Amino acid sequence: MDYVVLMPGANLQYFTGLSLHLSERLALALIAADAQSIHIVLPALEQPRALAEYSGEIAVRWFPWSDDEGPMNALRNAAAGLIGRTVGVEYTTMRVMELRALEEVAGIHSIDASAAIASLRMQKGNDEIELMREAVRIVEAGLKTAIEAIQPGRTEREIARMWEEAMQAAGGEGPSFATIVASGPNSANPHHTTGERQIQTGDLVILDGGALYRGYCSDITRTVSVGEPTAQQRKLYDAVLAANRAACAGAKPGMSGAQVDRLARQVIEDAELGRYFIHRTGHGLGMEIHEPPYIASTNKVALPIGTVFTVEPGTYVAGIGGVRIEDDVLLTANGAECLTNFPRELIVK
Amino acid sequence: MDYVVLMPGANLQYFTGLSLHLSERLALALIAADAQSIHIVLPALEQPRALAEYSGEIAVRWFPWSDDEGPMNALRNAAAGLIGRTVGVEYTTMRVMELRALEEVAGIHSIDASAAIASLRMQKGNDEIELMREAVRIVEAGLKTAIEAIQPGRTEREIARMWEEAMQAAGGEGPSFATIVASGPNSANPHHTTGERQIQTGDLVILDGGALYRGYCSDITRTVSVGEPTAQQRKLYDAVLAANRAACAGAKPGMSGAQVDRLARQVIEDAELGRYFIHRTGHGLGMEIHEPPYIASTNKVALPIGTVFTVEPGTYVAGIGGVRIEDDVLLTANGAECLTNFPRELIVK
Repeated sequence: MDYVVLMPGANLQYFTGLSLHLSERLALALIAADAQSIHIVLPALEQPRALAEYSGEIAVRWFPWSDDEGPMNALRNAAAGLIGRTVGVEYTTMRVMELRALEEVAGIHSIDASAAIASLRMQKGNDEIELMREAVRIVEAGLKTAIEAIQPGRTEREIARMWEEAMQAAGGEGPSFATIVASGPNSANPHHTTGERQIQTGDLVILDGGALYRGYCSDITRTVSVGEPTAQQRKLYDAVLAANRAACAGAKPGMSGAQVDRLARQVIEDAELGRYFIHRTGHGLGMEIHEPPYIASTNKVALPIGTVFTVEPGTYVAGIGGVRIEDDVLLTANGAECLTNFPRELIVK
Repeated sequence: MDYVVLMPGANLQYFTGLSLHLSERLALALIAADAQSIHIVLPALEQPRALAEYSGEIAVRWFPWSDDEGPMNALRNAAAGLIGRTVGVEYTTMRVMELRALEEVAGIHSIDASAAIASLRMQKGNDEIELMREAVRIVEAGLKTAIEAIQPGRTEREIARMWEEAMQAAGGEGPSFATIVASGPNSANPHHTTGERQIQTGDLVILDGGALYRGYCSDITRTVSVGEPTAQQRKLYDAVLAANRAACAGAKPGMSGAQVDRLARQVIEDAELGRYFIHRTGHGLGMEIHEPPYIASTNKVALPIGTVFTVEPGTYVAGIGGVRIEDDVLLTANGAECLTNFPRELIVK
């Protein structure tokens, strides 16, 4: 690639510190592969804040555009050096709008830069890991409050709100995604939207939440039984916990996402519950709540030292309920270090 | 176009009622132009909720894919009828990821369907307008509370939180965007992020917020003076108010966004403040907080009866402060009806 073009979002923030606003107004950063220059096209409205925010070492040339003139002239001027070049773009973030605009002004040949960028962001620095440890501390403090509050009659939404308020009180800057409290039959849906259902005796309750701290995410899931679990519920729990432990204990740098997924999945398959484990084992975690590497059978790329990802096997059975146990792990030279350490044994309320 | 392909988002919800989740997992709806069939490709995880949610009349064929197999086979099967066809896609929403996947499986020729879809969504039905009236009632109830709370020493964030809590108490389902409270020097930045600054005597304070109600948005801005305004502040206010009134009084169906923009801009230019009015006059409003039609000099498309948009002229002057006055208006056969009716005269606290 001769250039990389970045959209407002996590990659741009990672490389430049700029938190440009993603909207219907075109904003792009054009970065030469030799890192000698950055051209930034942005709405004139955004320029004062961006100027104040930028403290990078590479010289930036700004190409602001007003609502009155529209973005195309600014983009044409900024992209003069891209004409006919091979340009890396973020397939997972760039919209067709920006792609077509770049093709129109510079006839670029676009290729996917997502994997190349991800390979850099996957390897967290110590400063990033410290922020993630703090995000973990915050979400675990909130989770303790939420689990203490679980009792028959309380709604999912009430428990989620208490968790979120406790995270805020612990120094969090907000949830890193919409907090999930899934009770009883809702626990059997891995993508349940937290609602007004009242918790009842006999429920399994999945609690899945995260905190945001200075731009970095945490993400944890625990499952609680309200009243003594049935033998079937206990069987699900034991298999999921064993799968979580197997993947955390066995993950090593150099393994692929598929291999770590296999560690967890094998345990659940051996318990003859494989058909109820209907999602990947985990996802990368950092500035985004879902980012590479994905811990899935389709990911054959080696996991580097310093990457952080979730291990979150789950089983979901209509009529019995669901169980998911999720930890955030950091790959070190010695294996996986769990950043989350909230107790994993089944809590019976 | 032979087909339209929709991403998870407002257009898909508008046409099908489906609130699919936008994530790194591919999800698309492939709709034949004759509306005889809808093919939906989605993560298997999402299918139970989507099945329960769909109540449309057109038969849907579902193409779920699991994390284990990835999306390409499901997409290939779903897109068999698209091979070599001209397919409308949402340039402003579709990512390069989805475009390239469609090109790979079906060699589609993609064109921009954004304007065609927008022309439908622009014309609100009575049911939509009733929801927007309720969203306006909620945001105005909250704004009254927020303005009553303004006093020297209170922070921007405190005022914003009181506004949001009052909206929730009034039946709102959340803010329709991040509430802006911009005080003193911050008011001179039209894209200020609400922060910890304490309000002081002498400040102009811009309050810009909205409510979400059953999927529809409201959006209002008022500007308050803390203590008697200076002559310069008063001059800004009077010009902006006159511009707001001119555009609201003069807007008619069949005019373009550019013509309505001109109505407001002319007043501010006549007051010799044109260089401080650095953004478009407004934007469409509905399921999205920013949607077509844009009230900007670059928009030459005629505004239809039934469209709802904001009229929000503003002026921003370093050392003096900013003023913005924003209303939501509905175009009827007789002209513009203001949905927002919160008092517009300068409030001095």
